[in-house]
Parts: sequence; structure tokens; C-alpha cells
Amino acid sequence: MNRTYSMAKNERSIIKLKAFVLSPIFFMFIFGCALQALAADPLPSWNNGPAKQSIMAFVEKVTKEGSPDFVPVPERIAVFDNDGTLWAEQPMYFQAFFVFDRIKALAPQHPEWKDKEPFASVLKGDVKSALAGGDRALMEMVMATHTGMTSEEFAKIVKDWIATAKHPMTKRPYTEMVYQPMLELLAYLRANGFKTFVVSGGGIEFMRPWTENVYGIPPEQVIGSSGKTKFELRDGKPVLVRLPELNFVDDKGGKPVGINQHIGRRPIAAFGNSDGDLQMLQWTAAGTGARFCLYVHHNDAAREWAYDRQSHIGTLDKGLDEANARGWTVVSMKDDWKTVFPGEKK
Amino acid sequence: MNRTYSMAKNERSIIKLKAFVLSPIFFMFIFGCALQALAADPLPSWNNGPAKQSIMAFVEKVTKEGSPDFVPVPERIAVFDNDGTLWAEQPMYFQAFFVFDRIKALAPQHPEWKDKEPFASVLKGDVKSALAGGDRALMEMVMATHTGMTSEEFAKIVKDWIATAKHPMTKRPYTEMVYQPMLELLAYLRANGFKTFVVSGGGIEFMRPWTENVYGIPPEQVIGSSGKTKFELRDGKPVLVRLPELNFVDDKGGKPVGINQHIGRRPIAAFGNSDGDLQMLQWTAAGTGARFCLYVHHNDAAREWAYDRQSHIGTLDKGLDEANARGWTVVSMKDDWKTVFPGEKK
Repeated sequence: MNRTYSMAKNERSIIKLKAFVLSPIFFMFIFGCALQALAADPLPSWNNGPAKQSIMAFVEKVTKEGSPDFVPVPERIAVFDNDGTLWAEQPMYFQAFFVFDRIKALAPQHPEWKDKEPFASVLKGDVKSALAGGDRALMEMVMATHTGMTSEEFAKIVKDWIATAKHPMTKRPYTEMVYQPMLELLAYLRANGFKTFVVSGGGIEFMRPWTENVYGIPPEQVIGSSGKTKFELRDGKPVLVRLPELNFVDDKGGKPVGINQHIGRRPIAAFGNSDGDLQMLQWTAAGTGARFCLYVHHNDAAREWAYDRQSHIGTLDKGLDEANARGWTVVSMKDDWKTVFPGEKK
Repeated sequence: MNRTYSMAKNERSIIKLKAFVLSPIFFMFIFGCALQALAADPLPSWNNGPAKQSIMAFVEKVTKEGSPDFVPVPERIAVFDNDGTLWAEQPMYFQAFFVFDRIKALAPQHPEWKDKEPFASVLKGDVKSALAGGDRALMEMVMATHTGMTSEEFAKIVKDWIATAKHPMTKRPYTEMVYQPMLELLAYLRANGFKTFVVSGGGIEFMRPWTENVYGIPPEQVIGSSGKTKFELRDGKPVLVRLPELNFVDDKGGKPVGINQHIGRRPIAAFGNSDGDLQMLQWTAAGTGARFCLYVHHNDAAREWAYDRQSHIGTLDKGLDEANARGWTVVSMKDDWKTVFPGEKK
């Protein structure tokens, strides 16, 4: 073999290599490797235990074509409770903090609130007395702070509040008190063709201004409690005015009703944390084919809160019994989650 | 040039040609040509007039990145009325034929209907007398035929009916009395990143069983009028029971309310055919940025029906004035549509 021949061979090899490197096959190979690396652990904040395994086994079987459990993409509907499932709910629902902050902000326009319960207690910073009046008092405060304005005005109020308000104990913005493992779960499901919905007892128009940024869930996939609204022309401009009249309570038996009303298709996966989610899980479980139901169990007093059967907020009692009896996945926040909130050390 | 050399050259050319034909570039080229051919006219059943041009100009400007009118994909929401906009509505709403057929089917279980109006008239085939009682009589018939069963049972009743029922005048299935140009428009918008919604005065659970097959619109993108439902456990099995109680009327001012409730985002394009759609078009038009509003004008007595200001069904009076005053697109079915129903000669 002479040198000239050898060089020519090398050159040909280099050309071949270049051609290969520039070829679509090469790019697809590299892209595939990159995808596989990303896909290696779609749930990095979950410890490798039975909860994580049950989630992944479910997703794998319903997305595997030819599998007896295969579910076509349009039917891959997953529903998530919000308070206590996607973000925290202690020491009280975050929307209640919004109500109290709004009462303080609106107080100058309502001098009569100084002497009128439950508003007077809120203004004195006495939350316990403010809530002593039960549902009636709470509803009065919600109506006073959530109605009268247009839907657009209310959305702006919520956006401004959520951008600045801080949780009284952790001093973190509420949108950072979401659960990192659940954010990963939402993304993992969507990457597998699922449409993810929020189905919350919270106000539908309280959630929509921020769910797209925080959860990747667009407003049309948010279901919640609502007041009635009325279409009006104001100076020729069409507006929707929020009326002081309850429209729908999206809790307990209301959750399947809300799901049917908004989605019109039974979910195949449901995620909750309290007895208020039980009917949603039952409704999901009762469909034919593969189903997945999961309860988040708050048992991590060190990193979050620990509460279940006796808790006033997020009571998980009947739901826990039913989950155990039916073999639903129960997530131990303490054991199953490496991280609770985003940005924490693992 | 000797023959051997020439053959070798030909062979090389053939090999090069084969290599090219099998190359990904070639496939992409062919695929691209095919796509372009398909894309050449996305609205083949529309005559090339101002209506078609206005639709295409709007879609082009909102989808062109860098354009001042560009709209990001999640905000590309388009809402369509159903009766008279996506399918026909004469001589009466198709859901009314469903009501009458259900009354006939249920009559053996209701011997009392023989002597009770409006049922007695329906059973005698006297539609005019049955409808003489106005809204009250109609509501009575709707409640008698649309409630008492579970949501799933009702969906099956609708599916069975729509699969077999025929329009009394054309003898075609109702699902073939949809407008071919509107089917093309729905597909064209979706191909351009739009999410298409039905927003109809018709029953939400009357439409959902067939909109996905017929319009490509999944149940979660169907908004309509509804009755209340109740979650129950029947022999341990969760069901939603349809109650004889009105929940929501998705007509006139109810359309923007329903859009806000279900979508939570203002549409950028709205399509209707009657005064019942006017508030939906006003609500859509009042947003900032590029907006598109369109009325289908039924003026083709030869191929469909001709009616507008004086019609009892699908009245288009104020809407027509406002469309003309505001420069909204008004589709002349006679002049703008090559084809009305699918399968017709063009």
C-alpha cells in the first residue's frame, strides 16, 4: 500500500464521516439519544418506591400501542385537585389569604367594616374570630371581595396579588408553594399525550390567571367553584359582571358534576388529597379499562405539614380507607418525595 | 466514447438516481410538494370572493410571526355556533326532532300522554299544535325526554338516534346536513393552531356524543345549554343523574357567559348565523388585537333555505345591521359557497 493510496483512503473516510455527521440519520440518532437521556427519569423528585412505580407502570401500559390497556390520546384525561394536591393548603386555603388581603385593601372604601363582623376581626388581624362565623361568614367575605367588578378586572386583581403576596409562615410566594413532584408528574403525563385538568373547590377565576404559568394548564382546562356572571354593554363595551350569587360548588359530589359539565368525558386518572376529592376518584375509577387513582398523604411535618383524619382543612379519612381498600396509590410525602417545594435541596 | 464506458456512465447515473430517490431529501421534497398541493386551497368549497379572502387574510396575519397582528397558539380560540352555522336548522332545530322521536319512543311507558298536551299532538304527528304552547310546552317536552336517566344512558340514546334518524325533507342523516365549507373552515383553523369550540344554544349533552366524529371537536370543546345533574352511588356504582332542572341557557348574553365559564379566555374569532350569536360576536370583537367575526347568511332557497329578519328560527336582524355597520364578514351561502352539504356536486 503506497502513501498516496492510503491518504486517498483516509480522505474518503473523512468525507464519508462528514457525510454521515451531516446526514439526517445522524441527527435523528443524536436527537434520539438526547431524548432518551431526558426521558431516563421523568420524575426525578420522586423516590423510587411503590408510588412512583405505580404511576409509571400505569402510564406505560395505557400508552403502549397493542397493549390491552392502551388508551387513545383524546381519552387520556387526567384531573388534579389543587389545594393540598398541587400546592399547599395550610394553615388555611391560600384563597382565604387573598380574601383577607382584599378586605384590608378595600377597607378605606368600607368604613362600616370597622364595626361589622367578620370584617372587623379581619381588619384587627384576628383570623380565628373572623372564621368563627363558619361558612356564612366566609361566603359574606367572598362575596364582598369577589363580586361587583368585571371578570377582567378580577383577573387583574388576582394577578397583581399572586405576583406579590407571600405565605405568612414560609415567606415564599404562593406560586412557589407548589409541589415539585407534582409539577414533574403533570409534565410527564402531558409528554405522554394526557390532557391535564385542575378540578378544584377553589374559585375558577381565582386560579385561571396563573395556572398556565405555574402548572402549564391553560384556563380552558381549569374547573372550579364559581359565582354567576352577567353580560352587559357598558358604554357600548361588552363586559361580564361578577354577581353576588353562587353558581357552582366544585367540591365532593360537585367534582364529577363539574368534570362532566366541562370535559364531558370520564377521566382515566385522578389525583387528590382529601375526602372532598373522593367522589372524583370514585367517578374516575368506575370507568371501563385501565384507571389510576392517587391520594397525596400529608405526613411530613418537617418539610410541609402532617394532617389527615382529624384535620379541619383537607380532611382525609373516608378517602384513606377507600384508597387502602381499593388499592389506590397513596403517596407518603415523607417517603415518596425527595423534594417537596421547587428549589429545595434533594 | 465506447459502448462499455457509456453503459458504465448510465449505470452510475441510475445508481445516483436511485440513491437520490431513496434519500430523505427526496422524500422531504415529495412530501413538501404534496403538502403544498393540499395547502394550495384549504377552502375548496368556498368561491373566491370577499368572504373567503377575509378569512384567509385574518388567518395569515395572526399566524405570521413578527406580524403586528401575530397571536400565540394558546390564544387562538375560535368559537362556532352550531344550529344554522355548522349544520342546518330548518324547518326546526334538529334537537326538536329528537324530542319528538323520543316522545314517540317513550309513549308506551306513558299512556297518559294520549290525552295530555303537548304530547298528544306530537303523537298525532301535529307538530304545529305541539309547539303552540310556546317555550313552556317545549320545556315540558325537553324535561320529559332529557331527564331521569344517567348522563351515560342519555349519551347512548343520542348516539343511537343520530346514527339512524333522517331529516324529514331531505331524507339525509342529520350529520350529513352539516355545511361542507364550514367543515373545511374548522380544519383550516385547526391546521393553523386554532382550538375550535362549539358554543350553541342546543343541549351540551345532545351534541357531545357526535361532535368529535362530525366536526373533529372533542367533548371538552363543546359548550351548550344544560340541565342540572346529581352525583349518586347506585348499588355502589357512581352515576350522574340528569335532573328536571335547568342549569344554563347558552344563548344570547349567555354565550359570552358560557365562553368565560368554559374557556376563560376571550376568543379571537367567532362564527354565527343569528341574533342569538350577536353577544358572542360582540364579546369576541371587543378584545384587543386582531379579531374576526362572521355571520352565515341563509339566502339560498334552492340549495338550502332562505331566511333572516322575519324568520322564527335563526332570526338574523340586529346582527345583520351590526355586521354591516362594523364590517364583519357576511357569508352569502348562495354566492360564497360552491357546495353546501358534503357529497354534493360543486
